[in-house]
Amino acid sequence: MAPFVMKVIGIDLHAPGTPPPAFEDLTVPGTRLGEDLAARLGSAVGAEHVVTDDLDRVVHTYGKGLADLVRVRVGDLPRVPDVVVYPADEDQVRAVVDAVVAADAVLIPFGGGSNISGSLTPPADEQRVIVSLDLGRMNRVLEIDEAAGLARIQAGVLGPDMEEQLTARGWTMGHQPDSFRHSTLGGWIATRSSGMQSDKYGDIADITRGLRMVQPGKVVVLRPLPSTSSGPSVREMILGSEGRLGVITEAWVNVHRVPENREIMAYLFPSWAAGVAAMQDISASDAAPSVTRVSDANETQFSLSTQKKSKGIKGKVSKALFAVLERRGWDLQNACLSYIGYEGSAEHVTRTKAIVGKIIKAHGGIKLGTGPGSLYDQKKFDTPYIRDFLLDIGAMGDVSETAAPWSKLMDVHSGTVRAAREAFAQLGVKGFVMCHLSHSYHSGACLYFTFAFPPGVESAEEQLERYWVVKSAIQQSFVDNGATISHHHGVGTDHSRWLEEDISEAGTDVMVALLRGVDPGRNLNPGTLLPAHREW
Amino acid sequence: MAPFVMKVIGIDLHAPGTPPPAFEDLTVPGTRLGEDLAARLGSAVGAEHVVTDDLDRVVHTYGKGLADLVRVRVGDLPRVPDVVVYPADEDQVRAVVDAVVAADAVLIPFGGGSNISGSLTPPADEQRVIVSLDLGRMNRVLEIDEAAGLARIQAGVLGPDMEEQLTARGWTMGHQPDSFRHSTLGGWIATRSSGMQSDKYGDIADITRGLRMVQPGKVVVLRPLPSTSSGPSVREMILGSEGRLGVITEAWVNVHRVPENREIMAYLFPSWAAGVAAMQDISASDAAPSVTRVSDANETQFSLSTQKKSKGIKGKVSKALFAVLERRGWDLQNACLSYIGYEGSAEHVTRTKAIVGKIIKAHGGIKLGTGPGSLYDQKKFDTPYIRDFLLDIGAMGDVSETAAPWSKLMDVHSGTVRAAREAFAQLGVKGFVMCHLSHSYHSGACLYFTFAFPPGVESAEEQLERYWVVKSAIQQSFVDNGATISHHHGVGTDHSRWLEEDISEAGTDVMVALLRGVDPGRNLNPGTLLPAHREW
Repeated sequence: MAPFVMKVIGIDLHAPGTPPPAFEDLTVPGTRLGEDLAARLGSAVGAEHVVTDDLDRVVHTYGKGLADLVRVRVGDLPRVPDVVVYPADEDQVRAVVDAVVAADAVLIPFGGGSNISGSLTPPADEQRVIVSLDLGRMNRVLEIDEAAGLARIQAGVLGPDMEEQLTARGWTMGHQPDSFRHSTLGGWIATRSSGMQSDKYGDIADITRGLRMVQPGKVVVLRPLPSTSSGPSVREMILGSEGRLGVITEAWVNVHRVPENREIMAYLFPSWAAGVAAMQDISASDAAPSVTRVSDANETQFSLSTQKKSKGIKGKVSKALFAVLERRGWDLQNACLSYIGYEGSAEHVTRTKAIVGKIIKAHGGIKLGTGPGSLYDQKKFDTPYIRDFLLDIGAMGDVSETAAPWSKLMDVHSGTVRAAREAFAQLGVKGFVMCHLSHSYHSGACLYFTFAFPPGVESAEEQLERYWVVKSAIQQSFVDNGATISHHHGVGTDHSRWLEEDISEAGTDVMVALLRGVDPGRNLNPGTLLPAHREW
Repeated sequence: MAPFVMKVIGIDLHAPGTPPPAFEDLTVPGTRLGEDLAARLGSAVGAEHVVTDDLDRVVHTYGKGLADLVRVRVGDLPRVPDVVVYPADEDQVRAVVDAVVAADAVLIPFGGGSNISGSLTPPADEQRVIVSLDLGRMNRVLEIDEAAGLARIQAGVLGPDMEEQLTARGWTMGHQPDSFRHSTLGGWIATRSSGMQSDKYGDIADITRGLRMVQPGKVVVLRPLPSTSSGPSVREMILGSEGRLGVITEAWVNVHRVPENREIMAYLFPSWAAGVAAMQDISASDAAPSVTRVSDANETQFSLSTQKKSKGIKGKVSKALFAVLERRGWDLQNACLSYIGYEGSAEHVTRTKAIVGKIIKAHGGIKLGTGPGSLYDQKKFDTPYIRDFLLDIGAMGDVSETAAPWSKLMDVHSGTVRAAREAFAQLGVKGFVMCHLSHSYHSGACLYFTFAFPPGVESAEEQLERYWVVKSAIQQSFVDNGATISHHHGVGTDHSRWLEEDISEAGTDVMVALLRGVDPGRNLNPGTLLPAHREW
């Protein structure tokens, strides 16, 4: 990987990095928690679960967005939660919510802390007491309705813990976002998450059938239903609400029998256009794969650079393969790597592979096999770690993802790559941007962009300014090209300034009506979702 | 059919019926439309499209619910729209909406008038001027995005007209509610409709990807997206909004290539439990049929009674078949008829049939063939007509449908049949109730109940009282057994009294916050969706 990184962003991976500062070097603002609220929170969850230590409060200040990482590294902590509470059950959540609202304080629900859209960051100018509600103790699969394929699960459970509890009984939810190891069911629901296998299992909005959400003085209870026409969907209002409508305490979700067979197959296309066209044809075919993914040429070059050099026969074969492709007239610089996932009975897997194989061939693609496919499976949750490493060595890396109709996808891709490169040029930095298509639907797909550049300035403030030049260029390209501000990372504070361009001003009015009607006092995670000028 | 109807509800189909009264015999209240609003509406849509004739106003007073039919038959017209306007495009809709709100009048959007949940009926005590907005002139497929499989279609188009425009270009939306011939795209969206083929094409909530909705002074514009995480879903707030958030003028919907092959196959199960279990196994299998439907024993008896007596060899074969089944130990009174639909490539159809065939066999079912299947296809849009005919001969018939997890489905069925029978007994009438499972999902299914009884009282008022005894017993059974108030007919005024039991009081608060925030003056179809005590 090192030569590749040196080539595209001019950074030496082997250079001594600058690790983040020690926690002791940070200056953490003192807590503003008063005695009355402290006492009430203590009686709600037990005094030992009401924590005002600096470390707990800083851990709950940020998510894991690039801006979060940069700010915490330089001790930029204008406002941290004044207290972190750890409820054990829904009754305790109710008591906390009621106490917070009675004291006109602010509540920020906290799951795994992996949010990368700024949904967790307290507003810097918030004068009221800020309470971070950590749902980590509410981590159990409460019930599996085996006759219906439904499980009732507490919102604070982390991905691996949840799947362990489910698979012990032969079930799986099949939801695998990049953040899987560090994110929670409640967080997935609150941000409208998608997983790598959502082509098969559905986005979290499809998976979530019933919900419980604590609001001041009450609990919204939505029983699990396969479908309903009971008016505007309250379930779909809670999905994506990012804490502004209340605290999700548990959900009924679709679960499936652990599949008999599971396989990820790698393919190579001669071009990005061929790869995208193949994904669309697969989605329109009778095949039903669990994963459809294709990288653009840049991401393919990046992926190949991260492979360990294969020695012996395997290395020779792949070298020979590339030579053959070149003789066939492929420009290997344009080649695009694809992963397709297969799950189910042996017969289903065989048949789906056959259908997909034909489509890939029709688009000039070739099969690389399950070897690279299993590599994908091993590395699939690694991406979140790369960013921290890049920061250590002086590069800023982040992601922006979107969705659009198939007809607009090529323009979204080329427009966004162009926008990022223009931003790099404007800043005079050597930047890199790459992309993959990560989810396919009947009428469109998700595009997932990753970008990195050495900021070339010292201060965190200037670095973040430059980060925003690039990030904004990318987000603006999305809405300008008919794509959405986010397919599965949510709005938070990072994407909210484009909300009106995404869902229209009048659509934003509808959202304001809902949020304001439920939370007139702005006690529930204020500042997320809406652009600042739309707050009341 | 006649002997069957005589047996189950004691009504003679051959007795002379009482047709509805002539229109001239109705007393229609005069219009309250004032000159100012009339002028403003005229300049909005042209004076010739502002109609205050009695006939137009009465046509726009009711939907097609049983209560609607009974009331219009006896000239029970406490409140009719004061004017019907027929806009030609969205700009005209905007002008109408603005005029109505400026005059503090009430707007009721009207599509095909086929609603059976009371969503169209003006509140009897509404003192303000009531404007019915008929979208029938906005009936065009505006655009097909062939590269994405999306079509932009005006909301006022009727099912057959829309499909004709689409199939002329090789596309279909695949949405086929019972009401297909008389209902509109906008109506489907406003009530969260489902069609017979929703197992393949999705409910209207899945099909609808983008929307335009006119609100006072503005237009909500949601661009077509395959999926998005831009906060609480405004799209899913408009779906099911039944006119209370504004007027849907057009939508971007998923469309598909007209399938190469299409087949409906009939099967017979030895029991309801076996049939339902088979539907669940099919939904969990690798098969992807377009229709999954199984009738309970009562509905099966009804269906068989409506078949024409087959003569010759065909009649002999089916007689022999039933004799064979009896010798095998079937109790034919418990037999349950099922229809499964297959669509797609020849290979897909063959394979899906093979998978389904095995499952049906495993549950003791047998194949009847495509003969009865094509009968289903011919008759599938006929049900709406039976009710009018029943009323002519003195019987009241109506439907109630719901959805629930598979684990609760048998209890929903038995509980609802029991509730209906107890209601019949309480009224001392000879009633009949039957049911079919009409849509399958991973975690549950839709149950569709039809009931009929001779009211045994003369006055419409007493008849409706009795109707409500039965209908209420059925709806109460739904919510008591963990099912929803409606799977695809919407809430209207008929189901709203159970809304709080369905989505909880706090969930209803969320809905009120939304509706009240958007329409504080209650100008947009007030009275639907919410129970009366929740109006502001």
